[in-house]
Amino acid sequence: MKKRPEVIAFQGERGAFSEVAVRQLLGNKVEVRPCERFEDLFRYLKEGRVAGAVVPIENTLAGSVHENYDHLVNFELPIVAETSVRIVHNLIALRGVKFSQIRRVFSHPVALNQCLDFFARNRRLEKVTFYDTAGSVKMLKEQGLTDSAAIASAVAAQIYGANILRRSIESDRQNFTRFFLLRTPRYARLHPPRAPKDAEWKTSLVFSTRNVPGALFRTLSAFALRDLNLLKIESRPLRGKPWEYLFYLDFLGRTDSPAAKNALSHLAEIADFLRILGCYPKGA
Amino acid sequence: MKKRPEVIAFQGERGAFSEVAVRQLLGNKVEVRPCERFEDLFRYLKEGRVAGAVVPIENTLAGSVHENYDHLVNFELPIVAETSVRIVHNLIALRGVKFSQIRRVFSHPVALNQCLDFFARNRRLEKVTFYDTAGSVKMLKEQGLTDSAAIASAVAAQIYGANILRRSIESDRQNFTRFFLLRTPRYARLHPPRAPKDAEWKTSLVFSTRNVPGALFRTLSAFALRDLNLLKIESRPLRGKPWEYLFYLDFLGRTDSPAAKNALSHLAEIADFLRILGCYPKGA
Repeated sequence: MKKRPEVIAFQGERGAFSEVAVRQLLGNKVEVRPCERFEDLFRYLKEGRVAGAVVPIENTLAGSVHENYDHLVNFELPIVAETSVRIVHNLIALRGVKFSQIRRVFSHPVALNQCLDFFARNRRLEKVTFYDTAGSVKMLKEQGLTDSAAIASAVAAQIYGANILRRSIESDRQNFTRFFLLRTPRYARLHPPRAPKDAEWKTSLVFSTRNVPGALFRTLSAFALRDLNLLKIESRPLRGKPWEYLFYLDFLGRTDSPAAKNALSHLAEIADFLRILGCYPKGA
Repeated sequence: MKKRPEVIAFQGERGAFSEVAVRQLLGNKVEVRPCERFEDLFRYLKEGRVAGAVVPIENTLAGSVHENYDHLVNFELPIVAETSVRIVHNLIALRGVKFSQIRRVFSHPVALNQCLDFFARNRRLEKVTFYDTAGSVKMLKEQGLTDSAAIASAVAAQIYGANILRRSIESDRQNFTRFFLLRTPRYARLHPPRAPKDAEWKTSLVFSTRNVPGALFRTLSAFALRDLNLLKIESRPLRGKPWEYLFYLDFLGRTDSPAAKNALSHLAEIADFLRILGCYPKGA
C-alpha cells in the first residue's frame, strides 16, 4: 500500500517563500497546506490536522517575527529543524510574454520596495501592489494578463506555469529569512531530529527576568561559565508589564550535553520563566 | 521677521504613522518632507536639506528595523529624542459616505492583516491592497470613491479631509512603533537635548565582538559592574562574516555620567567596533 504523503502547513499562497523553506527542509514529496494566518497553522498542528508546520522566525532586514515567538511559547510545539532561505525576487510573466510587453508589475509592497533599483532602471514599469508575492503570479494566470508581470519566488513561477523574465532583481542580496520546522511533541519524541555525528546543534529558548541591573548578566553567566557559545540574544519588553522583559536566546549545543544541562538548570534558578523551544541540527 | 518653520523628513506619504511620530515629538508647527526611501531622509539630513528626520526603529510585533540601524551607523546622525506611537488603524471614508455604502477597503497589506477580526465580522467588505496606508486615503479623495474606505491613521483622515467611520479596528492593541528623532551632529552640539531634572535618559549604541564563548558576557560586565540597567539588547549576525555579530544595546543613563563613561571605556576595550548612536530623554 502506498504511504500517504505528509501534509505540512505554511502561511501564504502556494509558491510563497515559506513553501521554498518547506522544500528545502523536506523535499518535494510532502504535500503543503497554505494558511491565511500564522495562528491557524499552529492550531492545525496542535490538533493533529497536519504533520508539521514551517514558520518564519527572523529576517536579516526586517528583524524577528515576534508573533511567531509568542505562538511557539503558547502552543508548545517543538522546533525540530531550521533552514535559511535567500529572498530572491524574480520578474515573472505568463509564457510567451516578452519583457518589452510589460507595463505593470504586481507584488506585495515589501517586495516592490526591495526592487527599487530595478524600477529606477526601467521607468516605464508601473508598480502595482498586491496582497501576496506568489498570489500576484496566480492572478496573472487567472486573468490572462499579457501586459503585466509579477515579482515572486522561482517556485511560484513553477507552480503557476509562468516564466521568469528577469532573475534576482532585488536591490539587496543580503536578504535571508530563517524558518523553523515544527512538529507535535509526540512526533518529536518518536522521531527525534537526526544529523551526522559531527554536525553542530542549536538550542532555542525563551526566558524572562525582572529588570534589575545585572539581571541579564547573571543569566548569561549560566552559559559563559560553561563555555557555551551564544548565537542569538534579543530582548523584548513586555507591554503592560513595565520593567519585565522576554529574552530570545539560541546557543550552540544539545540540551542533553552535560554543559547544557547544567547551564539550563542554572538559568532556571535565575529566570522567572523559562521555556525550551527546541533542539535541532544547525541549518546550512 | 517671522521665523521659517523647520522641515522634518519622514518616510511614507503625508499622514503615515511616521508623521504621527513627528507631531508627538515636535508638535504642529514644523513642516514635513515625505520621502520614498529611508536612505533618502538620512541623506537629506546629512546634506542639511532638512532640519531633522524621524525614523521607525522597532515595532512590538515586527521587530527591529535593521535597515535604519545600518543607516544610523553609516550616516553618523545623532539620536536626540524618541517616542512610541500606538498603531491605531481606523476605517476612513470620504465625507458623507456611510458605513453601509462601503464595499471595498484599501490599505497596505500589513495593515489589512492587522484588522482580520474586523473583516471576519464584516464579510461583505473586500480587502484591496495598496502601497501605503495614508496613500490609500489620498487615493479615495483623488478618485472620489464613495463605495470604498481606507485603513490608516487618524492624522491621515485629518490631512485629506476624510471621515473616520470606525476607530481602532486593529485586532491587537499591543502594536507600538518606536521612533527616533535625528539631527545633524552640529545641531545636536548647539542644541543638546533637554529634559526636566528628574527625567530618565537613555543611551543607544551598536558594537561588535568576535563570536568566542563568553564574548557578550564580558561586554555586558561593563554595564553590570556599574549597576547600569540595560533596556534593550539584540544580536544580529553579520552576513558574509560568519562568527561576527553586531549588537544593539540601550541602557538607562547619560553618556556624561561617571558610571557610563567608565562602562563605555571598558566596553571599548572589549568590542572590536563601538558606536554611540545617541543619548536622549526617555520617551513616554
